[in-house]
Amino acid sequence: MYNDIFVKEDKLREECGIIGIYDKGNMEIENLTYYGLIALQHRGQQSAGIAVNRDGIITCYKEMGLVSEVFDDKILNLLKGDISIGHVRYSASGENFAANAQPLLVKYKNGNIAVAHNGNLINAGIVREHLEDQGMIFATTTDSEVIASLIARNYKVGVEDAILNMMGVIKGSYALVIMTNDKLIGVRDNYGLRPLVIGRRGNGYVLASETCALDTIGAAFVRDVEPGEIVVIGEDGIRSIHCSSIIPQSKCIFEYIYFARPDSIMDGISVNQARENAGMILAKEQPAEADVVICVPDSGTPAAIGYARQSGIPYAVGLIKNRYIGRTFIQPSQVSREIGVALKLNALKANIEGKRVVMVDDSIVRGTTSKKIVQALKDAGAKEVHVRVSSPVVTHSCYFGIYTPNRKELVGASRLTEAIKKKINADSLGYLSIEGLLESVGSNGEGFCTACFCGKYPMEILEGCINDA
Amino acid sequence: MYNDIFVKEDKLREECGIIGIYDKGNMEIENLTYYGLIALQHRGQQSAGIAVNRDGIITCYKEMGLVSEVFDDKILNLLKGDISIGHVRYSASGENFAANAQPLLVKYKNGNIAVAHNGNLINAGIVREHLEDQGMIFATTTDSEVIASLIARNYKVGVEDAILNMMGVIKGSYALVIMTNDKLIGVRDNYGLRPLVIGRRGNGYVLASETCALDTIGAAFVRDVEPGEIVVIGEDGIRSIHCSSIIPQSKCIFEYIYFARPDSIMDGISVNQARENAGMILAKEQPAEADVVICVPDSGTPAAIGYARQSGIPYAVGLIKNRYIGRTFIQPSQVSREIGVALKLNALKANIEGKRVVMVDDSIVRGTTSKKIVQALKDAGAKEVHVRVSSPVVTHSCYFGIYTPNRKELVGASRLTEAIKKKINADSLGYLSIEGLLESVGSNGEGFCTACFCGKYPMEILEGCINDA
Amino acid sequence: MYNDIFVKEDKLREECGIIGIYDKGNMEIENLTYYGLIALQHRGQQSAGIAVNRDGIITCYKEMGLVSEVFDDKILNLLKGDISIGHVRYSASGENFAANAQPLLVKYKNGNIAVAHNGNLINAGIVREHLEDQGMIFATTTDSEVIASLIARNYKVGVEDAILNMMGVIKGSYALVIMTNDKLIGVRDNYGLRPLVIGRRGNGYVLASETCALDTIGAAFVRDVEPGEIVVIGEDGIRSIHCSSIIPQSKCIFEYIYFARPDSIMDGISVNQARENAGMILAKEQPAEADVVICVPDSGTPAAIGYARQSGIPYAVGLIKNRYIGRTFIQPSQVSREIGVALKLNALKANIEGKRVVMVDDSIVRGTTSKKIVQALKDAGAKEVHVRVSSPVVTHSCYFGIYTPNRKELVGASRLTEAIKKKINADSLGYLSIEGLLESVGSNGEGFCTACFCGKYPMEILEGCINDA
Amino acid sequence: MYNDIFVKEDKLREECGIIGIYDKGNMEIENLTYYGLIALQHRGQQSAGIAVNRDGIITCYKEMGLVSEVFDDKILNLLKGDISIGHVRYSASGENFAANAQPLLVKYKNGNIAVAHNGNLINAGIVREHLEDQGMIFATTTDSEVIASLIARNYKVGVEDAILNMMGVIKGSYALVIMTNDKLIGVRDNYGLRPLVIGRRGNGYVLASETCALDTIGAAFVRDVEPGEIVVIGEDGIRSIHCSSIIPQSKCIFEYIYFARPDSIMDGISVNQARENAGMILAKEQPAEADVVICVPDSGTPAAIGYARQSGIPYAVGLIKNRYIGRTFIQPSQVSREIGVALKLNALKANIEGKRVVMVDDSIVRGTTSKKIVQALKDAGAKEVHVRVSSPVVTHSCYFGIYTPNRKELVGASRLTEAIKKKINADSLGYLSIEGLLESVGSNGEGFCTACFCGKYPMEILEGCINDA
Repeated sequence: MYNDIFVKEDKLREECGIIGIYDKGNMEIENLTYYGLIALQHRGQQSAGIAVNRDGIITCYKEMGLVSEVFDDKILNLLKGDISIGHVRYSASGENFAANAQPLLVKYKNGNIAVAHNGNLINAGIVREHLEDQGMIFATTTDSEVIASLIARNYKVGVEDAILNMMGVIKGSYALVIMTNDKLIGVRDNYGLRPLVIGRRGNGYVLASETCALDTIGAAFVRDVEPGEIVVIGEDGIRSIHCSSIIPQSKCIFEYIYFARPDSIMDGISVNQARENAGMILAKEQPAEADVVICVPDSGTPAAIGYARQSGIPYAVGLIKNRYIGRTFIQPSQVSREIGVALKLNALKANIEGKRVVMVDDSIVRGTTSKKIVQALKDAGAKEVHVRVSSPVVTHSCYFGIYTPNRKELVGASRLTEAIKKKINADSLGYLSIEGLLESVGSNGEGFCTACFCGKYPMEILEGCINDA
Repeated sequence: MYNDIFVKEDKLREECGIIGIYDKGNMEIENLTYYGLIALQHRGQQSAGIAVNRDGIITCYKEMGLVSEVFDDKILNLLKGDISIGHVRYSASGENFAANAQPLLVKYKNGNIAVAHNGNLINAGIVREHLEDQGMIFATTTDSEVIASLIARNYKVGVEDAILNMMGVIKGSYALVIMTNDKLIGVRDNYGLRPLVIGRRGNGYVLASETCALDTIGAAFVRDVEPGEIVVIGEDGIRSIHCSSIIPQSKCIFEYIYFARPDSIMDGISVNQARENAGMILAKEQPAEADVVICVPDSGTPAAIGYARQSGIPYAVGLIKNRYIGRTFIQPSQVSREIGVALKLNALKANIEGKRVVMVDDSIVRGTTSKKIVQALKDAGAKEVHVRVSSPVVTHSCYFGIYTPNRKELVGASRLTEAIKKKINADSLGYLSIEGLLESVGSNGEGFCTACFCGKYPMEILEGCINDA
Repeated sequence: MYNDIFVKEDKLREECGIIGIYDKGNMEIENLTYYGLIALQHRGQQSAGIAVNRDGIITCYKEMGLVSEVFDDKILNLLKGDISIGHVRYSASGENFAANAQPLLVKYKNGNIAVAHNGNLINAGIVREHLEDQGMIFATTTDSEVIASLIARNYKVGVEDAILNMMGVIKGSYALVIMTNDKLIGVRDNYGLRPLVIGRRGNGYVLASETCALDTIGAAFVRDVEPGEIVVIGEDGIRSIHCSSIIPQSKCIFEYIYFARPDSIMDGISVNQARENAGMILAKEQPAEADVVICVPDSGTPAAIGYARQSGIPYAVGLIKNRYIGRTFIQPSQVSREIGVALKLNALKANIEGKRVVMVDDSIVRGTTSKKIVQALKDAGAKEVHVRVSSPVVTHSCYFGIYTPNRKELVGASRLTEAIKKKINADSLGYLSIEGLLESVGSNGEGFCTACFCGKYPMEILEGCINDA
Repeated sequence: MYNDIFVKEDKLREECGIIGIYDKGNMEIENLTYYGLIALQHRGQQSAGIAVNRDGIITCYKEMGLVSEVFDDKILNLLKGDISIGHVRYSASGENFAANAQPLLVKYKNGNIAVAHNGNLINAGIVREHLEDQGMIFATTTDSEVIASLIARNYKVGVEDAILNMMGVIKGSYALVIMTNDKLIGVRDNYGLRPLVIGRRGNGYVLASETCALDTIGAAFVRDVEPGEIVVIGEDGIRSIHCSSIIPQSKCIFEYIYFARPDSIMDGISVNQARENAGMILAKEQPAEADVVICVPDSGTPAAIGYARQSGIPYAVGLIKNRYIGRTFIQPSQVSREIGVALKLNALKANIEGKRVVMVDDSIVRGTTSKKIVQALKDAGAKEVHVRVSSPVVTHSCYFGIYTPNRKELVGASRLTEAIKKKINADSLGYLSIEGLLESVGSNGEGFCTACFCGKYPMEILEGCINDA
């Protein structure tokens, strides 16, 4: 997205955000969906789509681009209805054009079904092959089409049982909103890897990836969808079905570190609070002798505030981000190299010059950006730059819906902290420990997936069957 | 399209044009496909798409818009390959957005398959239902997806037999180009309702709806694909398979009247020649005492020239078309009514004033435009206006790939010629007879579908199962 | 323009079209101006502009692009008023961006003045220098700004006398529409080099370059503005002022050959009639033994019809133009050369093959296109190609508002007809004589500028003071 | 601009940013200008323009839109040269289209001159009338054209003396970059109302509104242009001319409060430091009993940090701004009212709920937004909301280049603080005093214009001669 081109190049990336609304008689369900997606835009900026159901007829519109670019008044006016689902997506590189934008809308025996998915199936390839053996065709490479196919072929048992069956077949992470001819259904995988919440707005219901979408459209938070739960919203209100398998929860902890919006509350934990906590614990674990604490805007802010509060070192603004760097802006590749960083992040000399600086960031992936920022701070006169990271070293790839670079691109996969410190030219470097991170979300060590820091995945990853898309 | 907004509103409309190229080692197959589609643009102006095969990996790009709007250098550069298919489409009203643009690209057991279709299946609904009974899902409402599904579920017998099987199931009109992992396949329905020709370019082969596409890209015409023929182009060259059913041919005669480009040669007949012939026969069947013969630009030109030549009445330009009326142009609905016609077609007073005018048009569908033009000619001082139409009265709808208005909108469905004459305010009105029309294409009365003039459809039309899309 | 990219590259080009409307109380003057400009679009396709006067406040909007691209509903709604002027322009190469689009709107002592100009001043440089000596600044390089400056500095004598003074200073060709706070004024240079007509619509008046604009907006033709006449339209109706100088008229004869729309009547002569006449005289001057007469679409049509009529050789369509080649279309420069011509103009084999063809064109400038078309006809099987041109050999550049290439690019400037024939590979080549051309417009040899054929300019061309812009 | 639509509606607005570069032999001066303008984009978002000088030929391109929208690679490639000036602009409402975008490029006796202006002339109307008396015309309503005209008419004395003369005629605020055939000239008005700095990059010189533009393109800060100084940069290096009039400086203090980027250093004062100071002084002047200090993003951040530091109350993030609200985004006017605020700024409940909140903003203009934010905080559970404003009450309009609403729209013009407090529904409201503000920039009460807070304008404002444009 716009002003995050620079910062994001060194971040992990969420791959999707989803929303669903059921509100009979509401005249502007398409607008609510639109605004809800704008609130979830940080979860995916490459495509956006909305499907609405009007008296059983489902219409879907989706395109590459930001929500505000994809939709205008004219298009939204064509999307009137009583039930809706919406999707924003970060698509991994290598995919062609718009074919894989979501929601996916298909027709099957019992009518229409539209699916929007956040997560990643690790056995999609195998399941797909199995379905192809039976003569099925696939128009996209999305997991959503696999999911829709699995539901469709069991149409005789009804959509709810078909979904239960489907959950027995697929493996991986998924938060789903599914729209049928007359229902809105939310599904969360057994591990709870991806978030999904329930809200209430007047007589209507809202499902969304994060509570910030509820706040934005004036819906009241009801509760999180539970891991392994199917929530069915229809004429008779809301009902729950629970997938029988009992397995330990394994919620993605990176949601708290970077992906989720700080104003969201996720499985009972304030995202901002978790980040402030992380900063405070980091200050205890990795203290520094310094004059000022600064953040790397925008995501590092709460952790930096927490670090400053705990350490007693004053917090100040040390880097100014140019908010006018749009997507069409011309990359300064041809111009003298030094322009790059200053164009996007300029050091605020008055707060840096002659000082020992603690620079707090929420994560380091490749390390390339950290190096540039450290240099910029030194150019601005910093006496020392102490980098503190409010999460542990990223050492392993994620297979559950997060875009991670190849392991060899992960600066932490093969290097000790000391080596990274040298690489980014910091005077000192400290990461939060895994224990500290778990403490920041109030955990005693259970309930969260920390595989990207330790390699312990919540389920077995079969070589060769990973759908990297 | 651009300058045809006005004229076309009173014409029948072709629904698609297709092209396919197989040329291993050609470095610019995507450009050839692009130029070929531009040559076929008159067959459909609402969406355009190209799929290319590079070492078995098929990439597809399609969007709403003209060929020159949908594709630019950047996109064409992403479409490099050895085999390609392309499609232009006029989509019937009521369809939502871009989902039904073609080619359709799907993945199935034996790899990828891309399909582009010109025509209309009259039993698509029934077939689709049957497939849904087996748990299949459909992502579009196109006949192409039905066709691809039928091929996919027979993957075990190989693609050629699967196509033969498919031809036994589907009913209706179809010219198809199909691209698999390593082949380009052309198919024409048993009746030969829609055209398809074979061309040769260097070592490569070209399939296209019309010969004008061959001319445009410098390919030599080889022959027409025969009704019921499957043409398979691969590493070993070109092979033919013939569908066993022997049924009388029934080629669409409207291709000669209006749809095809005049420089195309279709099933051995020059389209322009057929139109000139029609004009000459019309002059014999429907003579007129007049001073000048004019055409309604642009499609009526050859018939008017034929009429003039036969009758000995001088041919002259009588109506000037404004070629700068683009699609974004503002309709003069709010402005004084009289602007409408003159903006698009202005009478050339010097050739009209004080004269008895024969105005030759190729067809009349609703009659609304004819009325306006007759009035414009009279306003310009025509003493008499004798309307001559180089095709018979359109009385029935087409179910085989031509967009026709409802029967009640067809001015000829319920009115005698005399009544139409009054409605359009002509001094006389004469249509070509069906016999005359058949004579114009050199037929003794067989081999052509003339259902839109007489209601005799080449196959039974089951009520309720017509896929109007 | 769209489909004329190809043909125009070998044509002379008109540089502007203008329109002005005065109609108090008309609610849609901006729409009328818009439609009028669309009717004049053939006179210039690179920029378009409209200025309207509402109670003395003038608003102007102009951009690069076609009329239908520059204006939409939203913008036209901002252009409400009682008086308007409009302009379309072909801008000569080398000019930067949009700065020189017209109308030009300036503020001066007596209020606002907007100017739209068709033509070219040959002493603009000298006059501009003189004004700069007095401390004036110029924001554009247009003649219009020179004209506005000359009017402004004489503001004390009133706008009409200021215009008379201005006409005494400037030299060259000009048809002008000028809008002041309360008047619409039309001006035509003493030679009548550029056309301007007066129309009447209800209580309102219209000034326009051609009568086709009057027809389009439903205005009745009143008369041509006379050479040297100033027409002032205001509250009291219409008044005429005549510039005192009496000089021989010298109307641009190329308007009849190529620039004007065939349905226009210019200084009493039907453009189409003049072209048909030219074709008939050409048939007498340059007969040919042949089987068919064809035109080069679209501008050569009337002359070809005239040639056929006079010679008795049948007229037929021989070349089909692709009307879907838009401006964004990708030039086939990288593709095999042979595609170029066929893409834009395809020979209609059925009318060409085995025949001796007379190909009639209205003019040859560089000869490059003629060569390609002759080749295309021969490739289509023409036995002989006899090129006949319904105007004389272009030998000299124009300095009066027509874009002509450098003399060395004019194929006729340095070559005899025989050499041109060889260059374009025709079997014979015949041009209309200057006398024949004059006869085609009913002239006894006077009243027209034929400088581009003979070099006799109506006024002295001072070396070094020609404003080539 | 993008994400500032909401916040800015209740802010004063800077009207322009300017830049100029002189760097013979630099191959990418147009890119440097482009990046410099992106760094100045916060000073104006409605139009952008660049003019470059290549061997005395000046080319100018300007359009409505953001810098990154107006320019692309293709256009920048047309703007090669050795000297350049650039401009970004916020245009006041009521202006038509793009005519007034800058730089202004004109031709006069001594060649070309391009002017970019930040500020506002208060006697432009009178000067313009005087020039019109002499027969001059004006193509725009910009002050820049008045300035260029005044320079042009004195061309005989040379451009430097002409500028000195011009400075004697015009009244108001101005920072100018002027480009002639061979020079880059910077001018700052005698009061120093608008900022202008000098930078050095390799052998080249840079003039810019703020130092952040120098940082961005890797130029070293040299010094501020002094009030009344003319800086002439040419082949011989840099020279200074000082306007003789000695008058007290009166620099715009709002630059420090809101307009300038926090990382800029302006007349020796760090903008961020001034804002932090203001927050600290505010904490002393207007203390509050509270649990948390939050800022209104983004501009209120440094003052909130200062307030927290001084008061000892913890600083926390209390409002999350949606950074994905683009300009094309659909305003929620038709949707339920409550959506409005939450869409753009969502309260971070975890930091607000049950707390007494100090909400620090940098200024209040209309008060409409403040009211909404206070409500949002209370809805999120704030026990009390204490609004603290790090500038005094805005009571008067600005005539020197800042867009201010009508006095009657200024919430502080007619209301006491107590009444404003009620209007915005705060539990308490405190403004910084004028003395405190002056202290924050290290002033003893002199050298700054504080007219918007007290009505004491640095020069007499003549009724009726104010150019409100």
